[in-house]
Amino acid sequence: MFFTSDNAAGVHPDILAAVGRAGAGPAMAYGADPLTAGVEARIREVFEAPEARAYLVATGTAANALALACLCPPWATVYAHHRSHIQNDECAAPEFFTGGAKLTLIGGADARIDAAGLAEKIRTAAPHGVHNVQNGALSITQATELGALYSLDETARLAAIAHAAGIGVHMDGTRFANAVARLGCTPAEASWKAGVDILCLGATKNGAMGSEAVIIFDPAKAWEFELRRKRGGHLFSKMRFIAAQMDAYLTDDLWLTMAGHANAMADRLAAGIAAAPGCKVLNTVEANMIFAELPLAAHRRLQAEGARYYPAHGGQDETGPDDAPYTARLVASFETTEAEADRFIEVLRG
Amino acid sequence: MFFTSDNAAGVHPDILAAVGRAGAGPAMAYGADPLTAGVEARIREVFEAPEARAYLVATGTAANALALACLCPPWATVYAHHRSHIQNDECAAPEFFTGGAKLTLIGGADARIDAAGLAEKIRTAAPHGVHNVQNGALSITQATELGALYSLDETARLAAIAHAAGIGVHMDGTRFANAVARLGCTPAEASWKAGVDILCLGATKNGAMGSEAVIIFDPAKAWEFELRRKRGGHLFSKMRFIAAQMDAYLTDDLWLTMAGHANAMADRLAAGIAAAPGCKVLNTVEANMIFAELPLAAHRRLQAEGARYYPAHGGQDETGPDDAPYTARLVASFETTEAEADRFIEVLRG
Amino acid sequence: MFFTSDNAAGVHPDILAAVGRAGAGPAMAYGADPLTAGVEARIREVFEAPEARAYLVATGTAANALALACLCPPWATVYAHHRSHIQNDECAAPEFFTGGAKLTLIGGADARIDAAGLAEKIRTAAPHGVHNVQNGALSITQATELGALYSLDETARLAAIAHAAGIGVHMDGTRFANAVARLGCTPAEASWKAGVDILCLGATKNGAMGSEAVIIFDPAKAWEFELRRKRGGHLFSKMRFIAAQMDAYLTDDLWLTMAGHANAMADRLAAGIAAAPGCKVLNTVEANMIFAELPLAAHRRLQAEGARYYPAHGGQDETGPDDAPYTARLVASFETTEAEADRFIEVLRG
Amino acid sequence: MFFTSDNAAGVHPDILAAVGRAGAGPAMAYGADPLTAGVEARIREVFEAPEARAYLVATGTAANALALACLCPPWATVYAHHRSHIQNDECAAPEFFTGGAKLTLIGGADARIDAAGLAEKIRTAAPHGVHNVQNGALSITQATELGALYSLDETARLAAIAHAAGIGVHMDGTRFANAVARLGCTPAEASWKAGVDILCLGATKNGAMGSEAVIIFDPAKAWEFELRRKRGGHLFSKMRFIAAQMDAYLTDDLWLTMAGHANAMADRLAAGIAAAPGCKVLNTVEANMIFAELPLAAHRRLQAEGARYYPAHGGQDETGPDDAPYTARLVASFETTEAEADRFIEVLRG
Repeated sequence: MFFTSDNAAGVHPDILAAVGRAGAGPAMAYGADPLTAGVEARIREVFEAPEARAYLVATGTAANALALACLCPPWATVYAHHRSHIQNDECAAPEFFTGGAKLTLIGGADARIDAAGLAEKIRTAAPHGVHNVQNGALSITQATELGALYSLDETARLAAIAHAAGIGVHMDGTRFANAVARLGCTPAEASWKAGVDILCLGATKNGAMGSEAVIIFDPAKAWEFELRRKRGGHLFSKMRFIAAQMDAYLTDDLWLTMAGHANAMADRLAAGIAAAPGCKVLNTVEANMIFAELPLAAHRRLQAEGARYYPAHGGQDETGPDDAPYTARLVASFETTEAEADRFIEVLRG
Repeated sequence: MFFTSDNAAGVHPDILAAVGRAGAGPAMAYGADPLTAGVEARIREVFEAPEARAYLVATGTAANALALACLCPPWATVYAHHRSHIQNDECAAPEFFTGGAKLTLIGGADARIDAAGLAEKIRTAAPHGVHNVQNGALSITQATELGALYSLDETARLAAIAHAAGIGVHMDGTRFANAVARLGCTPAEASWKAGVDILCLGATKNGAMGSEAVIIFDPAKAWEFELRRKRGGHLFSKMRFIAAQMDAYLTDDLWLTMAGHANAMADRLAAGIAAAPGCKVLNTVEANMIFAELPLAAHRRLQAEGARYYPAHGGQDETGPDDAPYTARLVASFETTEAEADRFIEVLRG
Repeated sequence: MFFTSDNAAGVHPDILAAVGRAGAGPAMAYGADPLTAGVEARIREVFEAPEARAYLVATGTAANALALACLCPPWATVYAHHRSHIQNDECAAPEFFTGGAKLTLIGGADARIDAAGLAEKIRTAAPHGVHNVQNGALSITQATELGALYSLDETARLAAIAHAAGIGVHMDGTRFANAVARLGCTPAEASWKAGVDILCLGATKNGAMGSEAVIIFDPAKAWEFELRRKRGGHLFSKMRFIAAQMDAYLTDDLWLTMAGHANAMADRLAAGIAAAPGCKVLNTVEANMIFAELPLAAHRRLQAEGARYYPAHGGQDETGPDDAPYTARLVASFETTEAEADRFIEVLRG
Repeated sequence: MFFTSDNAAGVHPDILAAVGRAGAGPAMAYGADPLTAGVEARIREVFEAPEARAYLVATGTAANALALACLCPPWATVYAHHRSHIQNDECAAPEFFTGGAKLTLIGGADARIDAAGLAEKIRTAAPHGVHNVQNGALSITQATELGALYSLDETARLAAIAHAAGIGVHMDGTRFANAVARLGCTPAEASWKAGVDILCLGATKNGAMGSEAVIIFDPAKAWEFELRRKRGGHLFSKMRFIAAQMDAYLTDDLWLTMAGHANAMADRLAAGIAAAPGCKVLNTVEANMIFAELPLAAHRRLQAEGARYYPAHGGQDETGPDDAPYTARLVASFETTEAEADRFIEVLRG
């Protein structure tokens, strides 16, 4: 019953096997190997984007910060949700990689950027010209930090607002697979066809060890990205091991199968929680994340049985009466089993 | 016959197996897992440094740049050899991570920093106070970019010069294992006992996939390092896979066995080259690297037989007469076999 | 009737004369001249701070950004009001000079930071350790961007919250003179005695050409500041001309006389506006700034007569009916005359 | 007898008078005043460059660093002489403003960049692609740090090498006036007609208080410059006082008159020194700077009489015998008088 985060999960056996196969014998370093070339080709095919360039790094923070640095100059601002990972969980990596750009925070339900709020911020961005940071980039997270999805139309609408202001669109796709699996669309539809300029496609949280692809749909930005990646220390000499992960991930729709499974396990958990006495699911479960209110008694039972999950927000009192509410965040992963989910519900119900 | 670099080699089976074992089941992310804790404990033990802190990253450039940023403020300078990796091969990563510090370049045979040159540069560093960059840090590479070693005394002498000026000592130890294996000393003797403040201990070139330990002997710098690592995008969520590599690497002296083998293969190659007609070994082979002058005819033969290696310096004419000299750089690795070395010599001799 | 800003004013004759006197004959450059030494001595005396160091720069943005860089490391955050100059009017200079720190924005009436809001932000700053930016510095503006003052107690309370969290306090004192003149306190009481660690003391808006003193009450930070100033391009070779301004400014309380006059002119304007039909003063006038609602008819009359001022916020419709409201920001300066103020009221009343 | 540097000189009375005139009454801030507009128009006219944009800052370091940041991205390198001001005397300001670019140092007599050396460095700049910093910008200093001049042809040749590599040309023109006065050419011939893309035109060392113009001949770079200037803290609110200096400077050829005088005084000094017993002028005096070897006895006599100048290089022994050599650097300025020069020679001769 390990629901702290999908990054607590292990590695899918197919990915591990691919890494093992990659290790035999010599190969040219720094991505000049056939596996890395193959991954780029595969990404182009999967995304129906023959001109796209795709680069591998090993952490989501690196992917996001490098991508944003290619879109947003130091004297500009990145529009992002106030609940976004780039704002809250990267220790100012975007500010570091951009050379001191700002983040301008926008609200919106379920950590989805409110379109009207974005439009208003962009419109009023630099009333005093050179005194203000300029419009720089839009960053949206799919699925969001609160486990919600942007519909294709919502993505397109936000992207259109950004493009009308002359700025590019970054998608933090650490859980892009979960989104595509749920939306039932093509990867292309969820990215460049909806206006995304650079997609950070996560694999780490969804069954890889550490592999993220930065997909740059406009190849004019590619060389700058390569230089930034190198000087950021994110160009791997033995790239083939990062590439092997991504290659297996995208082979035979493994990524979507894993994400679909994680989503289904989240649904299963949510249904069980919703039906349990005194419990409430707080979000519409669209990806693999559940926010739920449990009675403290149930929370204590779960803890005693070894269930692991985080509070939805810090500072909750765990010493109250049995029927006091406790708000938990649960994240399902490709490794979550039906038995694990069912056991959680069983303990929850007491 | 793949001698381009030791980073072209694959992964040692023990390391691969350790990674495979690490993949089973959930674990806390971002290094809060037992494997990562175990690696730090192991490093302290191997280095006889119970107060040291050790952090894992996945590339040598990240390790170096993050370490230097902890030692050298933006208004200071890093003393380094003009042949060093941090100067020539990291696309200004040190400048980026330090926030715009300088590198001050020093000469010295075999890419070893000349002690008198260092002392002079430090002494005359800032004649006009605030107008000049200040003394910041000393960076030495063990083994050097030209495959040479600092003796323990040489390291200590350079470190003493740095410490006398109040600055810290960084060691780029991407091939530290090769040095220790050859010097026959303890890891502690080659690092903190000789005055090294932060050691970047490489494993990637010597049998890992991508794993480097930054060993900070003065724990006061540790928290800053952690924050810099995170905002540099170098904190891995599934850290256990980086840790598993380093753990296997340091277990039962695997690292020294591999490095010793690579060194021995370099010796074997060097002996063969030195004895071949018209050939000359240009360096004292102290680690796993050979610089050799071959007749162009031999070079062509080797190319035709599929031998892979780099020219020692760019722009060499390969179209000259058979007896014209060609200067090659060969790097042996843990994977190099005696048969491979012998085959190289066989083809070389014609 | 020029009320756009106090930086639209000219230079006080005494300051101009001092600059003229400074120009005769040679002097050592970069601040090694007697005038610069004299200014530092005078500042120590005026601020009753014999250990303080004081450095001159020529713009408020430089003063603020350099001071913040000395207080807030790149992986931390500056707490500031969302209406502050450092957030809105410096094109991300703090982010640039700190090397990519964040600003965390806090609310509060009249652009004064709300103490409870600050305490809460500090308390919840880094729930996930290394993933979050750390507490870095507090920045308060005296007088605020909306022309309000912190009482000595309010300043002390905010500073105490910051110090309890181990972070330093920066005061943007571009209108510090206006504050001191109104509060009737000593400069020391309004700064270090209330917990300010670095004060940026403005002179430019209050009768100088371009001269700002960064007063560092803890001399341990001084050398770092000097180096940052130099590499920021803010160390003047002919420093004596910046020093001459500041010297005259602080001589015989000229600075407080000028600021007191500007405050009085703001009072005079405010009283006139408040008494005019259909007009409303929106703020408590504590410094030299007035926010007022005027009927559009009056606004048009004033424009026709050549009055210059800015709208209090952008995008106001100026084409409405005569009695529709228009919100203006007026700033009085040391140069504002009673006649000018009275003429404004006369035209306003129609 | 004040020959430490031309920045030890005072201000020309015409410039002081212009500053005084600028102080009367209100004016729009941040350069939106008629004086600033007039300066830009005047610069366009003086430089025969109707499309050029010209921006004022107050220090040479700011001018240089901001200009270089517009030409050289963070992952590239600035080619500069190893004796250049940007390398030795700006505390890494170029590294700071570019976001961590490198300086690649080139030799050449009299601190003039050797064209063959430049071509070779550019040609071999990035042998390993993304691992190396890329070609970024060329920076030349006119007159050089050793008081020498580039001929128009030399400038053009260097600029052609840079342009052939696709990089821009920055000229550090802190003593551009001295160069133009000596070369007898037009300002246009010495700058854009010879291939200079951005000229930092100094006035501070030549009779102003603190005023430097950054002249951007390709207006496409102008907006970026404006934003960089603002966030660097180098946009003055009361810009008119910086503009007034530059305006007077360029009026009626005052700048060339002053520089010509300084050059002539340097000639006069050099002639006197060359004729004095035991003395030697070490450089060809092309601007206003003299490097001379004097007997220690003469040096002591001069010091006793109050002559001020710097040693040409640090660490000279001043305690030797009377006829031991001492190497001095003397800089003449617009204020240097014939009497002062003659008195120096008189004391020198003993």
